[in-house]
Amino acid sequence: MMSALVASAQPIASSKWAIALHGGAGGSLAKMGEEAKQLHRDSLACALEIGKKILANGGSALDAVEAVVRALEDDAHFNAGRGSVLTESGNAELDASIMDGSTKSCGAVANVTNVKNPITLARRVMTETKHVLLAGKGAEDFAATQNLPLVEQAYFISGHRDPLTSSIAIREPTGDDSHYGTVGCVALDQKGNLAAGTSTGGTTKKMPGRVGDSPIIGAGTYASNDTCAVSGTGIGEEYIRHAVAYDIVAQMRYANRSLEAAATEIIENRLKPDTGGLIALSNDGTIVMQHNTEGMACGAADSQGRFETFLKIEK
Amino acid sequence: MMSALVASAQPIASSKWAIALHGGAGGSLAKMGEEAKQLHRDSLACALEIGKKILANGGSALDAVEAVVRALEDDAHFNAGRGSVLTESGNAELDASIMDGSTKSCGAVANVTNVKNPITLARRVMTETKHVLLAGKGAEDFAATQNLPLVEQAYFISGHRDPLTSSIAIREPTGDDSHYGTVGCVALDQKGNLAAGTSTGGTTKKMPGRVGDSPIIGAGTYASNDTCAVSGTGIGEEYIRHAVAYDIVAQMRYANRSLEAAATEIIENRLKPDTGGLIALSNDGTIVMQHNTEGMACGAADSQGRFETFLKIEK
Repeated sequence: MMSALVASAQPIASSKWAIALHGGAGGSLAKMGEEAKQLHRDSLACALEIGKKILANGGSALDAVEAVVRALEDDAHFNAGRGSVLTESGNAELDASIMDGSTKSCGAVANVTNVKNPITLARRVMTETKHVLLAGKGAEDFAATQNLPLVEQAYFISGHRDPLTSSIAIREPTGDDSHYGTVGCVALDQKGNLAAGTSTGGTTKKMPGRVGDSPIIGAGTYASNDTCAVSGTGIGEEYIRHAVAYDIVAQMRYANRSLEAAATEIIENRLKPDTGGLIALSNDGTIVMQHNTEGMACGAADSQGRFETFLKIEK
Repeated sequence: MMSALVASAQPIASSKWAIALHGGAGGSLAKMGEEAKQLHRDSLACALEIGKKILANGGSALDAVEAVVRALEDDAHFNAGRGSVLTESGNAELDASIMDGSTKSCGAVANVTNVKNPITLARRVMTETKHVLLAGKGAEDFAATQNLPLVEQAYFISGHRDPLTSSIAIREPTGDDSHYGTVGCVALDQKGNLAAGTSTGGTTKKMPGRVGDSPIIGAGTYASNDTCAVSGTGIGEEYIRHAVAYDIVAQMRYANRSLEAAATEIIENRLKPDTGGLIALSNDGTIVMQHNTEGMACGAADSQGRFETFLKIEK
């Protein structure tokens, strides 16, 4: 069940860039039909292409991360934005965070119910407030002041794509694969700046008000130019308990471990099997994607011509 | 402005215990009259005595932390529970977290407006749900199911003790010392288990919905028996950005630094002056209390007879 993929790259010069994304880790992939698998890979490739274009054109890692996560939020295949799972009360409550590795500026939102793109709201928290995390109605009131697109709950509840068949269905607060589908992105731009972002609808049938790791800087998301950028996906409580995203930074910073060794320590030794996965990108352009679940939807691209998507990383 | 205090102790045998608490870091202490200072120290001593008794009688670190933080929440001198500061809308929104270093179990609540003791609600999240963090109405609905004491907003807004004079006054959402008064506790029990907890009303005139570091495991609170327990107080956004509590654990775990060296790295090198302070307790009973603000209300006691409180730690 343990899987790892590492792509080493030369130190990034001024024209080098790299990006990775994920669309969640879990067991659903094993149950998907071929058509649904292809639709998922098409969705990943489409989002990856958006990030690739931004970075290849000299755009910032932060812009690439926001744009990729927005695309995945708008895609009903994933448990973020439009495709968010529902709480035990049958509502969608969305979480997201974003972090700029060059300044350690960060922003996050939790439990928002009417914001089309939580990742963009998280970025506004970062740039337009003195705070890092806004939750619930306060976050929604702030969204209204920012003229961001707001939606009704029906946007999240209707028109959902079943993750197994990709058919359109009305959502039900059920499902046994409770941690599949969170989305995230890590990017390195041509200036050498790292960024990370994560967005989710949380876990199926979560208690109303539950906040997972995705909006927690240090748990689901972290970026620091001295080391790496990380976005996690899995059982959020375990990611919070182990401070997963920041732990990878700390292993590199304090134990001089490689990004791969740090990620492997977390995924294979620290987290129990079937907990989740992560994508990470070091400041030299090395991309690591690992999971200890049956599958993880992910993809990677870089300035050396790499462009690929996966529903499972072979070890 | 940098201050440090370290009390080394021998490795804890079965009858050894240690505890430290804080009542916030900031500049207010310099402006306090002598009477107010004495009242603050009396409050700290009273709470410390509660924890001391639990640990001396063989109680758990977790019970000591909860009881000490509850006492400080009920004391209107501090910005937690009854004495919480108000948002820019004039409301109290409370945050708290608690962590068991023996199991890494943890629980937290954010933005609760009607719960008398958020630290106890945080512990119930830890023990009675599968989640780590509940925010807003969801947290309050859960509190109602737990038969915990609920209060009206008036409980937080009226009967407040002015931090400078200790006189009773109706609260106003004003004040220039925006990060004074968060409370926290770290404890080591006779079984060698560590625990940490933190509770706050947040920052004065915060935006509604703002969540600081106190309910964020890894930022304001962390405990792991292999290293130490930490509770922070200060500008929460900086504590989240730098994953302060977990960073101390990581420095000890990955760089083999002492608790004192790890805390000093954070307080003197990582955080800007006047950001805050922290209390930390290693698994050998060493207590470290440091701050880079003008003052920090804190105290420490252990099984070797130590029992003292401070409003400022001399370096």
